[in-house]
Amino acid sequence: MSTVITNIGELVTNEPGAGEGPLGLRRDAAVVIDGDRIAWTGPAADAPAADEAFDAGGRAVLPGFVDSHAHLVFAGERAEEFAARMSGRPYAAGGIRTTVEHTRAASDEALRANLRRLVDEMARQGVTTVECKSGYGLTVEQEERAVRLAAEIADEVTYLGAHVVPAEYEDDPSGYVRLAATDMLAACAPHARWVDVFCERGAFDADQAREVLEAGKKAGLTPRVHANQLTEGPGVRLAVELDAASADHCTFLSDADVDALASSQTVATLLPGVEFSTRQPYPDARRLLDAGATVALATDCNPGSCYSSSIAFGIAIAVRDMRMTPDEAVWAATAGGARALRRTDVGHLAPGARADVQVLDAPSRLHLAYRPGVPLTAAVWKAGSRVKGPQNETREAMGWRSS
Amino acid sequence: MSTVITNIGELVTNEPGAGEGPLGLRRDAAVVIDGDRIAWTGPAADAPAADEAFDAGGRAVLPGFVDSHAHLVFAGERAEEFAARMSGRPYAAGGIRTTVEHTRAASDEALRANLRRLVDEMARQGVTTVECKSGYGLTVEQEERAVRLAAEIADEVTYLGAHVVPAEYEDDPSGYVRLAATDMLAACAPHARWVDVFCERGAFDADQAREVLEAGKKAGLTPRVHANQLTEGPGVRLAVELDAASADHCTFLSDADVDALASSQTVATLLPGVEFSTRQPYPDARRLLDAGATVALATDCNPGSCYSSSIAFGIAIAVRDMRMTPDEAVWAATAGGARALRRTDVGHLAPGARADVQVLDAPSRLHLAYRPGVPLTAAVWKAGSRVKGPQNETREAMGWRSS
Ligand SMILES: [Zn+2]
Ligand SMILES: [Zn+2]
Repeated sequence: MSTVITNIGELVTNEPGAGEGPLGLRRDAAVVIDGDRIAWTGPAADAPAADEAFDAGGRAVLPGFVDSHAHLVFAGERAEEFAARMSGRPYAAGGIRTTVEHTRAASDEALRANLRRLVDEMARQGVTTVECKSGYGLTVEQEERAVRLAAEIADEVTYLGAHVVPAEYEDDPSGYVRLAATDMLAACAPHARWVDVFCERGAFDADQAREVLEAGKKAGLTPRVHANQLTEGPGVRLAVELDAASADHCTFLSDADVDALASSQTVATLLPGVEFSTRQPYPDARRLLDAGATVALATDCNPGSCYSSSIAFGIAIAVRDMRMTPDEAVWAATAGGARALRRTDVGHLAPGARADVQVLDAPSRLHLAYRPGVPLTAAVWKAGSRVKGPQNETREAMGWRSS
Repeated sequence: MSTVITNIGELVTNEPGAGEGPLGLRRDAAVVIDGDRIAWTGPAADAPAADEAFDAGGRAVLPGFVDSHAHLVFAGERAEEFAARMSGRPYAAGGIRTTVEHTRAASDEALRANLRRLVDEMARQGVTTVECKSGYGLTVEQEERAVRLAAEIADEVTYLGAHVVPAEYEDDPSGYVRLAATDMLAACAPHARWVDVFCERGAFDADQAREVLEAGKKAGLTPRVHANQLTEGPGVRLAVELDAASADHCTFLSDADVDALASSQTVATLLPGVEFSTRQPYPDARRLLDAGATVALATDCNPGSCYSSSIAFGIAIAVRDMRMTPDEAVWAATAGGARALRRTDVGHLAPGARADVQVLDAPSRLHLAYRPGVPLTAAVWKAGSRVKGPQNETREAMGWRSS
């Protein structure tokens, strides 16, 4: 089964050789999907025949978003805690441990349904690759369950046993680190590709994080690190030292941190929704980009610090408050996310890539920042399967095509 | 034709007598729609029979949003200008006059289609009352056309001939004010309910604004004023002096301005999307609320300073950056908007009110701020007609209902 997408207002390929600038922008292009792969991109006039045609009606076509950082295996929610925080009342006690309690008590079926709901919600917003972390179980059995369920539904699975020290290890954090680096890791590694640690004051220090990450590497996992969210801590340097795929948050960075990222393969993954929902200052993407670091944008979707599943929202904030240009932000949410997951098959549109395609209800990728908060996803294919969008809609009356 | 909405997770009535707090919150409530009106609200167990039932599946039900400030009669767009602004390059010349040129050149049909597209886009996001201003025509014929087309589609129509001085009057602003207060007003008044002026340095000063607004009052229109967006100008005081329904923007206010608003019927309509998209500081809603002023939230949707049609996005910003509680922001986007339009039939849910109802894909109104950027509109009725949503969907697997 093949589909040709025609009448594209603007095509973002993320292939610098295939068009203008770093986004490889083309106008009057067509895209052919064959099975689960991109079979062809090029000038519409040269497009090969296909089984069916999809008329994009002058809309922009982009690679699907790659959300390289999300926590989706959980139960319950924390809206009241959020409201209390925003109303200036003191932090409700509990926080992450509230979610741990709810998650432990939930059935597999409930966790699966919630995860499915959120992955579907993301897909309707153009996200075609989702990374999902454990970290609300914090026992061997519960963490194993979390990565196993994540592996059923998400594209990429990360073992985050070292998310926080659970209540029952409050007096023995080293014991918990040991568990996370041994039995818990052993139970989880078969279901995961990545090992992650929350390296931060109040969570795990550099030595603790190193113990878990190095054990993870020995078990065949590749590190990623929650780093420098709240302080200029050791997380980023540790991530670079261990050749982590990504250092996530990067809100508080020393010059040495920036240099370390710039001279490494470690992607700086920025999560603007977290700073939005916790009223923290935003990370400075410009500083990282100017130094030569690779920047990704992701959601960090989770019920505590950021319950947004919207990559487009992150793009809008990155442009307003993090000194990214609209094009840099679009790249970071597609190709950047792919780099952060060391994936070469997603985040760009070229023959052989996975057929992850989104059509915006807009003539240009610029509208993702120009029209903040507006749901702009018109159609989505993931691995060649339509997950959203009308069968073959053409809209005659395009305000944005007039005059 | 009547419909009973059952299985409501949380009902916002905006009727303090009908439930908890200023939002009149009820749990286990039902709502009955009969024709274009609300026929009944109360405990689900007491709900009268209806022709059909809609199972809300535990979701939150609210009055439709009231967007009391939008500019939707225009052609073309300005995404490139936006991108240039955000990338720190100098302002592209033209600005609003670019839109005036495109609008003048567009056919009635093109303007109607764009307006319809945007009103539909808003409806899909829960907006059931839309105010729409002229102001991109700036000739007698073009302004008359704008208000006439707006009256076909929008709920409330505002004559904004005094938006900016058009290029052809650059050397004779007084002549333009005279035109706006005489012939242009006469042509537009039959189609409009409101008269508005952009009272700001670079647009119209207090005397010019007063001339147009007083003429508008004589022609039977009620004033509203674009006031204090960029400076502590005279707009707010003028609005209060003329008993305007609303002073819009209110970003830069003196203590005297705050006091004037607090002791008047004039609503302070805040437009956070504008500050977001122009990188301006946000207005301080808390200061207004604490003084006793009535606050509304609206989009200002327009192709220049804010091309967002999302009221939910404004709610999220108001909570993060304008010191509103989530409940205050929800009230401001529903009941507050209704006050700003002096409408008693919308913005609340009580017998006799217009049946403008939205169902959120969330268990609580708090999710509008808790889940920024996520499209949360599950179903919408406007005057009793379904404009969005599945016929009768029940979702078994609600992550937010679990454990
Ligand atoms: Zn995280
Ligand atoms: Zn305006």
